[in-house]
Amino acid sequence: MPTRVHNFSAGPAVLPEAVLRQAQCEMLDWRGLGASVLEISHRAPEFIELSACTEADLRALLSIPDDYAVLFLSGGATTQQALLALNFAAPGQGADYVISGHWGETAIRQAAPYVSVNIAATSQADGFRSVPPRGSWRLSDSAAYVHITCNETIHGVAFRDPPDVGAVPLFADVSSMIASTALDISRFGLLYAGAQKNLGPSGISVVIARRDLLERPGQQRAEIFDYRAHAARGSMLNTPPTWNWYLLGLTVRWMLDQGGVTEFEQRNATKAALLYGCIDGSDGFYRNDVSPAARSWMNIPFFLHEPRLEAAFLSESRAGGLLGLKGHRALGGLRASLYNAMPVDSVQALVAFMDDFRQRRG
Amino acid sequence: MPTRVHNFSAGPAVLPEAVLRQAQCEMLDWRGLGASVLEISHRAPEFIELSACTEADLRALLSIPDDYAVLFLSGGATTQQALLALNFAAPGQGADYVISGHWGETAIRQAAPYVSVNIAATSQADGFRSVPPRGSWRLSDSAAYVHITCNETIHGVAFRDPPDVGAVPLFADVSSMIASTALDISRFGLLYAGAQKNLGPSGISVVIARRDLLERPGQQRAEIFDYRAHAARGSMLNTPPTWNWYLLGLTVRWMLDQGGVTEFEQRNATKAALLYGCIDGSDGFYRNDVSPAARSWMNIPFFLHEPRLEAAFLSESRAGGLLGLKGHRALGGLRASLYNAMPVDSVQALVAFMDDFRQRRG
Repeated sequence: MPTRVHNFSAGPAVLPEAVLRQAQCEMLDWRGLGASVLEISHRAPEFIELSACTEADLRALLSIPDDYAVLFLSGGATTQQALLALNFAAPGQGADYVISGHWGETAIRQAAPYVSVNIAATSQADGFRSVPPRGSWRLSDSAAYVHITCNETIHGVAFRDPPDVGAVPLFADVSSMIASTALDISRFGLLYAGAQKNLGPSGISVVIARRDLLERPGQQRAEIFDYRAHAARGSMLNTPPTWNWYLLGLTVRWMLDQGGVTEFEQRNATKAALLYGCIDGSDGFYRNDVSPAARSWMNIPFFLHEPRLEAAFLSESRAGGLLGLKGHRALGGLRASLYNAMPVDSVQALVAFMDDFRQRRG
Repeated sequence: MPTRVHNFSAGPAVLPEAVLRQAQCEMLDWRGLGASVLEISHRAPEFIELSACTEADLRALLSIPDDYAVLFLSGGATTQQALLALNFAAPGQGADYVISGHWGETAIRQAAPYVSVNIAATSQADGFRSVPPRGSWRLSDSAAYVHITCNETIHGVAFRDPPDVGAVPLFADVSSMIASTALDISRFGLLYAGAQKNLGPSGISVVIARRDLLERPGQQRAEIFDYRAHAARGSMLNTPPTWNWYLLGLTVRWMLDQGGVTEFEQRNATKAALLYGCIDGSDGFYRNDVSPAARSWMNIPFFLHEPRLEAAFLSESRAGGLLGLKGHRALGGLRASLYNAMPVDSVQALVAFMDDFRQRRG
């Protein structure tokens, strides 16, 4: 029996141990076929059934309304950031972007070749420690969409609720918050997520799109870049990332079996409260700079009052079985990611280590 | 110990059992990290090492010259068919396409929004039972590249040697022939392959590109569609499909350990000779229509002289532990794919079944 660490990686990230054990068990023989799921055609009836079940389970987990299509596509969120502009903005049309961190900037970089970007608001001036207040947004008149990043994985900043943007469809990167808390899908025109935070492995993305928007002509593009073509073919326009889809399916099923989003929302509130409590109660030994109303439950960046202690913090935490606490190079410092698959136990272990480290080094 | 079938799927396809067993073994604890490779950041030193080793192993396996870059990208060959036009053709420029089957047509469909397609030659008139003879090609004057499909997975048609196209770079889809036979990379400007035939799982592609071609400006495109940007970042511009990369690495390592391309070329010649021998020696009970000089070693489509026997052939072969023999819907009939990971034993089992079926039904 291997010793499993407490894994705080930002993504690829911890997966449910039950999912890994099932994948391990079925590796050479899936469903009694005498072959791995890795070795089966995506057109085989067993895989078609897997894809249908996965979609049904994801619809149940996230309460996705019927008038939204669900796509399972190869690649990550970055690819979707380019494709959404290609698919939903007419040539020369503009789109409004609200930036609350690193990934909002990435979204603009990918879309800029295809859409006239209007930065409607940004919290760059305060170092991305908040989300720009809705009242400050300067939305344009004929935008194709308004884009936000619901949770910024690096800066640890989250929108608590979807903002009201009127009749223009709201598009959102939900990579690091999908399924972590209840979300009213009907408030959005399009949601997209790389799976490697809360839904499974990297290499597959989920796109949830209001069906009427798929009728927009968008811009000239290859069929493989066309969401409507993927939707018409059940996300099997070409050979999909079958194993990634399988593992995503197991992860979604596990979340349903655990009690669904309601249950994870409670667990995530508990986990976040534990860690923010430890940081805020450390008399400044640890510090999280995000404005309390915008603090992420999923990704918690923090700093030591003495930056020179960072190396010791990382090596001692690693030795204590705590993995993945180094902050992203764009921000520095430390970071703990607390996705759905992370047990409360792991956060308790982290907090115990942090308290002990402070006692010894404070 | 599960009973493994003989798996003739066209892709996703049979993988080496040793690779599956290693992946199974390491599923919960990779390299003693206390976490799965699925759960580790692509920026972790262990994963960076995996990526470097995989590239070195692939370079050794395929004898890739140093002046070629190797990219590991998400998605399949279809995505590359669009990207190569975007990256290597100037706006308004043309490209020559030679069509020898279904995938040549797909390549054109994906590229057509970005390049002026000249069909230099096609074997459509003979039902894609041959490759168009080099002398018949009508190449244009200022093509960005000449595109061929080295092996047509559906029609079972292969180029035996890379054609000479002069100074214009030759681009080739090698999805279903990479590593199956010796190939002089220096004859090509660019090679691309979805991994799910000879290299591992679906969801990851390999692109091998002459470095000087990466300097071509191409067309306006998102960074995520830019080969040069991927090359500059070691294929980690964004979160890559890490598990797919890992499994590809194990598969490439296994091929090297087995003796490399020289060994597989011999095995593949043996396997193909067995099956074509069975078909050709069946007094017309079985039939392969491809012109002998263009017969694929990897994908062998065949027909029964009595199409009404097909259903019985499929159900009896399945009951006998032979999986994936149904032909592609575009061609009908039957098909056996004999990739590197397929043991000679499996082909012997197929031939024994076919001989027996003919005795009983002939």
